[in-house]
Amino acid sequence: MNSVTNDKVIQLSHGGGGKEMNRLIKDIFFNAFDNAILQNEEDAAVLHFDGNIAFTTDSFTVAPIFFAGGDIGKLAVAGTVNDLAMMGAEPQYLSCSVIIEEGFEIEKLKTIVASMARELKKSNTRIVCGDTKVVPKGCADGLFINTSGVGRILKPKISVKNLEAGDCIIVSRDIGRHGAAILMAREGLALESELSSDCANLWPIVEQLIAANVDIHAMRDATRGGLSAVLNEWAKASNVCIEVKEEAVPVSDEVKGLCELYGFEPFDLANEGTFIVAVPDDNAEKALSVMQQFCHCQSASIIGQVTADKVTADSNNAKENSQQGKVILHTPWGSARYLDVPQGELLPRIC
Amino acid sequence: MNSVTNDKVIQLSHGGGGKEMNRLIKDIFFNAFDNAILQNEEDAAVLHFDGNIAFTTDSFTVAPIFFAGGDIGKLAVAGTVNDLAMMGAEPQYLSCSVIIEEGFEIEKLKTIVASMARELKKSNTRIVCGDTKVVPKGCADGLFINTSGVGRILKPKISVKNLEAGDCIIVSRDIGRHGAAILMAREGLALESELSSDCANLWPIVEQLIAANVDIHAMRDATRGGLSAVLNEWAKASNVCIEVKEEAVPVSDEVKGLCELYGFEPFDLANEGTFIVAVPDDNAEKALSVMQQFCHCQSASIIGQVTADKVTADSNNAKENSQQGKVILHTPWGSARYLDVPQGELLPRIC
Repeated sequence: MNSVTNDKVIQLSHGGGGKEMNRLIKDIFFNAFDNAILQNEEDAAVLHFDGNIAFTTDSFTVAPIFFAGGDIGKLAVAGTVNDLAMMGAEPQYLSCSVIIEEGFEIEKLKTIVASMARELKKSNTRIVCGDTKVVPKGCADGLFINTSGVGRILKPKISVKNLEAGDCIIVSRDIGRHGAAILMAREGLALESELSSDCANLWPIVEQLIAANVDIHAMRDATRGGLSAVLNEWAKASNVCIEVKEEAVPVSDEVKGLCELYGFEPFDLANEGTFIVAVPDDNAEKALSVMQQFCHCQSASIIGQVTADKVTADSNNAKENSQQGKVILHTPWGSARYLDVPQGELLPRIC
Repeated sequence: MNSVTNDKVIQLSHGGGGKEMNRLIKDIFFNAFDNAILQNEEDAAVLHFDGNIAFTTDSFTVAPIFFAGGDIGKLAVAGTVNDLAMMGAEPQYLSCSVIIEEGFEIEKLKTIVASMARELKKSNTRIVCGDTKVVPKGCADGLFINTSGVGRILKPKISVKNLEAGDCIIVSRDIGRHGAAILMAREGLALESELSSDCANLWPIVEQLIAANVDIHAMRDATRGGLSAVLNEWAKASNVCIEVKEEAVPVSDEVKGLCELYGFEPFDLANEGTFIVAVPDDNAEKALSVMQQFCHCQSASIIGQVTADKVTADSNNAKENSQQGKVILHTPWGSARYLDVPQGELLPRIC
């Protein structure tokens, strides 16, 4: 049986369920994701759990598939690992399902799969099941990847509904880099600066926050919709007001520049390795010191605070206090405005 | 806030992570898949397990998305439910991740999501997490769906490696219907007959096989690659010979006709609600009687037997006995040939 490496591009037969597909899966995916569970070749992986687990899914359609700071493979692993991590769950097992366009270069596929394998190692995560589909030329744009993930919850009760008045809002690093990097790649901009995506596996940081016993109320990576989407979701779900100081939010000069050029707000731009955490006031310094140990998070900052009390379900105060469920941005000039959920097209195929 | 039902087609903003996406998710997906875990709106669903679970994934790219006997939504639920069922696992929780092409009709999306909801009910399965991506027109062909699933294993040790000499091979119904139905839809054939896909949720049947305490050695739905792919995988993984009587394999006249017309083998055609099970000889009648209670499985049949002993790893007999790892098909005319793994393009985008 020939090795798939003799082929240069993906053909329809690589998705047919026969010999060619078996070769592709063994030569490329099994080789890179090598582990005993995956090699079992059953229809499903058998895993053991005792207790609560987190389960999540994400499809990745980013264009271009290679960008400064990452590629679709790194993103597909980091994205799902981060969704688990944000729930206080150890990212133990992932699935990997690919939809490949006929004619896609096998060398590119190998590069992407190798990138996935590298990213998996950072959180000791294993891909234990998968699926490969090939669609005719023109029916997909290159390559789409779905990863779903499961892992045991080490820190329970992290929830969008758990914010309390007095909680500090911390952002792990400067915001907007992923959105800006994709925009740059797409527009063919060659800035003098070295702007790259923040795409990263957040589990190592979260693991340390849990180990340090930080009392995490809410935690979320600020992906599509950026910081604005996360804070608004929190404010609504917990029925609180979140007040943010604009000048406390770290934004790189490169991202600021691109935002001015294209009329974006850094708060709305996607991130892929930047998270927001809400902790009680007396836990904030501890959380910051843990985060700042990681080289990408040296600019971790307290950017605001939760200021309105929760309102009980049977209270009539909710409507009277119009700040609840809102996010207020205090500008450097002393004025304040609502930071709203982003609207409109933003950047399609950002992740 | 307007309802998404005011929009007629999917727009890029429906995947942007902002207001429009939130509306789409709530109006269409949450509405249809209504359950407490999904409504939690966390990054991941929180589930409880004690013991072994099965975890599986599949992406669905079938074309056309509507076909006789089903659509991509029914297929996406049944396919992943069946992968869990085939491992003896109760299909408890699914994820649902969609990639939608800009311009896709919202009415069609609703029809597909309603079809998923109907199929979920048949096995009491819940969709507990999801993801929505929109790609620009021309970057995908309509709609792709990924479903991943988890569920507790009720019947352990079902495995491709567990076939033993003397095991009976049973097929649950007539083969090749899904492949034939897709072929028919694609070629615009209007046969007088009512050929439709076998697309179905297999958990109700598997649940009864487990309840009846049938000693299941191996079980697999014969999807891409058909009966040939499954039997060859089993023969190799268990290092046994499987002998099949061609005339014992149920094939409908419509499927036979299409195969003759297009030069396909029914054994290679995909199924989406047909499974093969290997049980000890003295369990075969019990298994058959359970299966035949279900109206689609009245033609369930014993099609063959495992005939060669397993060879231990340190034995040198493996190479001497060239039948091990092979599938032999006995024709009605008394001759015999190897039934090989399918090769070539077969039918692209069959599932």
